[in-house]
Amino acid sequence: MPPLLTITTDFGTTDSYVAQMKGVILAINPLAQIVDVTHQVPPQDVFRAALILDEISQVFPAGTIHVVVVDPGVGSSRAIVAAEAGVQRFLAPDNGLLGPVLSRFPARRVHRVSDESFWRQPVSATFHGRDIFAPVAAQWSLGTDLSRIGPAVDAASLVALPRYEPRHEGSVLVGRIESIDSFGNLTTNIDERHLAGRHRALTISVAGARIGGVQRCYADCPAGDLLALVGSSGRLEIAVNGGNAAVRLNAVIGMEVRIG
Amino acid sequence: MPPLLTITTDFGTTDSYVAQMKGVILAINPLAQIVDVTHQVPPQDVFRAALILDEISQVFPAGTIHVVVVDPGVGSSRAIVAAEAGVQRFLAPDNGLLGPVLSRFPARRVHRVSDESFWRQPVSATFHGRDIFAPVAAQWSLGTDLSRIGPAVDAASLVALPRYEPRHEGSVLVGRIESIDSFGNLTTNIDERHLAGRHRALTISVAGARIGGVQRCYADCPAGDLLALVGSSGRLEIAVNGGNAAVRLNAVIGMEVRIG
Amino acid sequence: MPPLLTITTDFGTTDSYVAQMKGVILAINPLAQIVDVTHQVPPQDVFRAALILDEISQVFPAGTIHVVVVDPGVGSSRAIVAAEAGVQRFLAPDNGLLGPVLSRFPARRVHRVSDESFWRQPVSATFHGRDIFAPVAAQWSLGTDLSRIGPAVDAASLVALPRYEPRHEGSVLVGRIESIDSFGNLTTNIDERHLAGRHRALTISVAGARIGGVQRCYADCPAGDLLALVGSSGRLEIAVNGGNAAVRLNAVIGMEVRIG
Repeated sequence: MPPLLTITTDFGTTDSYVAQMKGVILAINPLAQIVDVTHQVPPQDVFRAALILDEISQVFPAGTIHVVVVDPGVGSSRAIVAAEAGVQRFLAPDNGLLGPVLSRFPARRVHRVSDESFWRQPVSATFHGRDIFAPVAAQWSLGTDLSRIGPAVDAASLVALPRYEPRHEGSVLVGRIESIDSFGNLTTNIDERHLAGRHRALTISVAGARIGGVQRCYADCPAGDLLALVGSSGRLEIAVNGGNAAVRLNAVIGMEVRIG
Repeated sequence: MPPLLTITTDFGTTDSYVAQMKGVILAINPLAQIVDVTHQVPPQDVFRAALILDEISQVFPAGTIHVVVVDPGVGSSRAIVAAEAGVQRFLAPDNGLLGPVLSRFPARRVHRVSDESFWRQPVSATFHGRDIFAPVAAQWSLGTDLSRIGPAVDAASLVALPRYEPRHEGSVLVGRIESIDSFGNLTTNIDERHLAGRHRALTISVAGARIGGVQRCYADCPAGDLLALVGSSGRLEIAVNGGNAAVRLNAVIGMEVRIG
Repeated sequence: MPPLLTITTDFGTTDSYVAQMKGVILAINPLAQIVDVTHQVPPQDVFRAALILDEISQVFPAGTIHVVVVDPGVGSSRAIVAAEAGVQRFLAPDNGLLGPVLSRFPARRVHRVSDESFWRQPVSATFHGRDIFAPVAAQWSLGTDLSRIGPAVDAASLVALPRYEPRHEGSVLVGRIESIDSFGNLTTNIDERHLAGRHRALTISVAGARIGGVQRCYADCPAGDLLALVGSSGRLEIAVNGGNAAVRLNAVIGMEVRIG
């Protein structure tokens, strides 16, 4: 089984930054298989990267190392951490990125990346992706134990992002738009459990629009209509059949979604 | 020989959707080699995806499995089909996508994808790419026979897109612009055979412009000039040497191209 | 060790061109590992491609074949050359692309690509990437010696781009902006050596702005402030902490940067 790594960054795809990381990884572990998740995380959007990491950690094979470099604090004293959680492995700045995955999967081990002997020298103050993340991930994929990468730390001590849980206002559940995909579909923080099997009976209010019922798929309503459904992440999603809900509703992340 | 798969979608590259498909494939077949064709097919543009599939099917090695998820009907009752044609293999929604490749290569076998035991459960109504296409492609790449994926169907029964063949109006051949690439080059449905060796003697009319003769390469005319040539797909192409013909001509897909 | 190739082009990612190259490579060498560097080099921007090639050639493992197809002269009589330099290998049009890497690493061997028996037939006049570069790179990765690909040529005879070296005007060093990355960071042609250890004492003038001192990392100045630092390429870089220096300064490539 070739060792598998994924890379998620906000580096874009017009420069050589991602390829430089891959060159470093393959120079250390030529058998590594590397999958790009996306390099178009909005610049420095740690919250978005955390959601993406949560999505992919549910489908990749056991042992995959997920490297995430969305790192506004590069070069400062923020830590880099390596974590084993569930059957997945993660390497990311300690800036809240691991919050959702560590909520989903119990962290078995978390280590702070500190042993400079694995790093590429000299370490650029602006490109830890190439000089720290890439060589450490490659070493890890070769079987180097976390204990050699740096000291164990308590998962509870990691930096936490604010968590947005839906709240009840009387009989109404109030959630929010958490992400917008490239089709303009709006994913919320409301999931299947919150719907309690009442899919068709619910009314969803968002950005001044009211939607009657939660459908099963886009084609369950006429083309061009706004609809709600449970998306592929298991969360309530607002969409337009054959169209763009974000544009239709002038939607932005953080907007309230009310269901009742 | 590692099993080779290509993936073509309209998912874009900012979300984790394509990576989720790859994670599912690699969890089933860790030795799979996966090549991205493009994930920027215009949303739901089945016609464009069909042309791209036709292009790549001519160059990939025998046995390659081409997975195409441009699927406006996801979650509805449209079928998914797996086909062996020429030395290539295809997995796509039954929405016309396979038309051009099956015109080019005889379909040896076509099966409807129906055996749910290979699918990822639960199947999301909105993401068959991850839950049906990916695991079925991975199983196929492991050597699972099509007969286990679902029942054989007649290639003639597949959904067909309209076909645009050039037509004669007296001595003039009337074709159309079929696709526009990222350089702004316009590919037509007119191919080498239609030119009948009269390349230099022809006049090409498109979008109000007249072009004298079919050249061999971009550099055969002065920089900035509009020209016609036979492109890398073997079809007549309209281009600007060092420029963008689509912008110059306000060209859109479907516009008439007249040669005579 | 699987043979490793990188591909850098200006083909964009919306068409099938890059995938067609990969299909040709994998049909000849199914064990090839292919890394995309970027396909978003600005159309025909040979200078930009040369800088990218210089960046990646410093990190990839020995023996990597770097294929670069930024080729305004495709189909004309410009040559294609294959070069071994340092521990890296390069395949590129003879249009100046190899200048920076061959300045950095001594060219051990340079051959002109001329033996058509390795090419894909018929050779399209507009897509040498698929029909010449891809099959030649694949053959090279299989161990075919350069002497079979074409005759040796003198590295000194290759086409050269203008070279922009910083110059002194009295006590002021005058360089230029050489590239702009997707974050809007401006990389100059001034490197660590030019700074002579006087980092904090220098004043940097660019596009009407004056910056006091060269910092170590983005976080060394307040969010939103303009700063200068030595970037990951070892060259002086102008950036905005958490922002976009190119937008802030209306910066374009070629602008003067003065330090003293």
